[in-house]
Amino acid sequence: MNIIVTGCCGFIGSNITKLFLQQGHNVIGIDNLLLGSKDYLPSNSSLFNFYQLDLSEEKNIDLLNSKIKTDYKIDEIWHLAANSDIKNGNESAKIDLKHTFLSTYNILNFAKIRSIKLFRFASSSAVYGDHGDSILNETSGPLLPISNYGAMKLASEGIISASTEGFLDSAIIYRFPNVVGSPLTHGILFDFINKIKKTPGKLDVLGDGNQKKLYLHVSDLIEAMLCVKHEKNITNVINIGPNDDGITVKHIVKQFLNFVPHKVDVFYEKKNKGWIGDVPKFNYDNHKLKSYGWVSKFSSEEAIIRTLRDYFE
Amino acid sequence: MNIIVTGCCGFIGSNITKLFLQQGHNVIGIDNLLLGSKDYLPSNSSLFNFYQLDLSEEKNIDLLNSKIKTDYKIDEIWHLAANSDIKNGNESAKIDLKHTFLSTYNILNFAKIRSIKLFRFASSSAVYGDHGDSILNETSGPLLPISNYGAMKLASEGIISASTEGFLDSAIIYRFPNVVGSPLTHGILFDFINKIKKTPGKLDVLGDGNQKKLYLHVSDLIEAMLCVKHEKNITNVINIGPNDDGITVKHIVKQFLNFVPHKVDVFYEKKNKGWIGDVPKFNYDNHKLKSYGWVSKFSSEEAIIRTLRDYFE
Repeated sequence: MNIIVTGCCGFIGSNITKLFLQQGHNVIGIDNLLLGSKDYLPSNSSLFNFYQLDLSEEKNIDLLNSKIKTDYKIDEIWHLAANSDIKNGNESAKIDLKHTFLSTYNILNFAKIRSIKLFRFASSSAVYGDHGDSILNETSGPLLPISNYGAMKLASEGIISASTEGFLDSAIIYRFPNVVGSPLTHGILFDFINKIKKTPGKLDVLGDGNQKKLYLHVSDLIEAMLCVKHEKNITNVINIGPNDDGITVKHIVKQFLNFVPHKVDVFYEKKNKGWIGDVPKFNYDNHKLKSYGWVSKFSSEEAIIRTLRDYFE
Repeated sequence: MNIIVTGCCGFIGSNITKLFLQQGHNVIGIDNLLLGSKDYLPSNSSLFNFYQLDLSEEKNIDLLNSKIKTDYKIDEIWHLAANSDIKNGNESAKIDLKHTFLSTYNILNFAKIRSIKLFRFASSSAVYGDHGDSILNETSGPLLPISNYGAMKLASEGIISASTEGFLDSAIIYRFPNVVGSPLTHGILFDFINKIKKTPGKLDVLGDGNQKKLYLHVSDLIEAMLCVKHEKNITNVINIGPNDDGITVKHIVKQFLNFVPHKVDVFYEKKNKGWIGDVPKFNYDNHKLKSYGWVSKFSSEEAIIRTLRDYFE
């Protein structure tokens, strides 16, 4: 197959790209290299064509179109490009407007121009907003995101859904949990590691440590994504999560400290959220994903430990 | 109060603006006059300041900010500006991107700059997408809009919700049904009237006539909007609809023909949707709105008849 992967140099995008290349697919990789790196990808695959483009700029769609031969048929788009620095997005909504939403809007326009009929999208649990202790399934509502990131993922879901009515044959929308694994580019473990590098004896944790969320290892995530097949004329929304109810930040701290060979003083904040737009707790009902015959290999805790081991050892 | 009404020259915006002026509020009205008209508004109210601005352009927010004195405190924004030509929006997603979503994004930015804490938004049943015979309440999901209009209303809901977490004190999101009344600027009755003017003996109806939707008279709509009060730190989503389960297009045709003094041949299409992105059926669970003590005066059918009577007599 000929596949476009947007955000191919990011954490999840690079893992997916490598897998597709191993499987013998041709991959057109697109990344603006704002957060990602080409180092995560093989440098010498004849199956791989890389375009450094910022998809949030409309004009780059014409550029992309001019670079790919008119008769080259693209089968599917895996759209993973987004701002992944959620905290940063709440300083200025523009970051998520551009990189989380307009990139979706523009790549859909490319799909329309080039008659690409199949679309997969990396959405997020952040579209739900803060539902407290509720167990979220795909029909849960109202969708009231509390971060600009979540809002622009929701906006992307909306325009994808309208595009399935318009010109796509099928779209799959995956609502990701927190994802961990290698390469570490953002998120709680990345944050902890950087803090310990700067001030080895001290760890300032965002929030009171009682936040409890689902973590999935990237290897599990990609398996889950692949087990969902396209269905004609449908926008299929699927929660992807591990087979447990999550792990607290305090517990992650404990696991993290097991890998740090010296004494660390840990400081928590008084507030229940790590930052404006942080959803302190979320939990998924995984029935729909299980109906595809898939269950995660690793629990939230195991995914965290495995990621730490890969990094430290 | 000092209130901003965006889309003040549109169908619903002009009715709300007139009411606020009657009630003695100061109104800053904004409209790009693409679809609306200043003729719908009083020309001589000292309470009214009008700015012809396209809110989809970021630079116009700075312009607006420079025009309104720094110490002029604005209490609330009623954001009604949007593309109302839903059919047109499916030719090019750009229309709804700009006028239905970016106008929301930009006016929220203005709210942030000017510390305006209260926000009301005209959303739409279109955010739900096509749920067949389901009765929709505010928690219904997934939200899979099938028009770009619905997608960009959903996107607007998302960014408003994130803004309540950020800088707003309260937001109310009204999910409108079809709204009828005077001035007729778009929608099924507007379409019928224009067709009969062009070809008096013939009426081409979009779709097979079995589409069944909720219609609310604009006087009812505004009453319903006003009965919902702001609640601190909440994004409140509310379906607004009449106290019935809707009226079919065929039935609207029958009512319409009662007002046409000559013979008309009616032609239906074979398809169940009037256009790409048309939701053939929708019905609301009104429990939440009723909990505010409000019930519509007019049924869907009465709203249609009243609108036709106002137009033809």
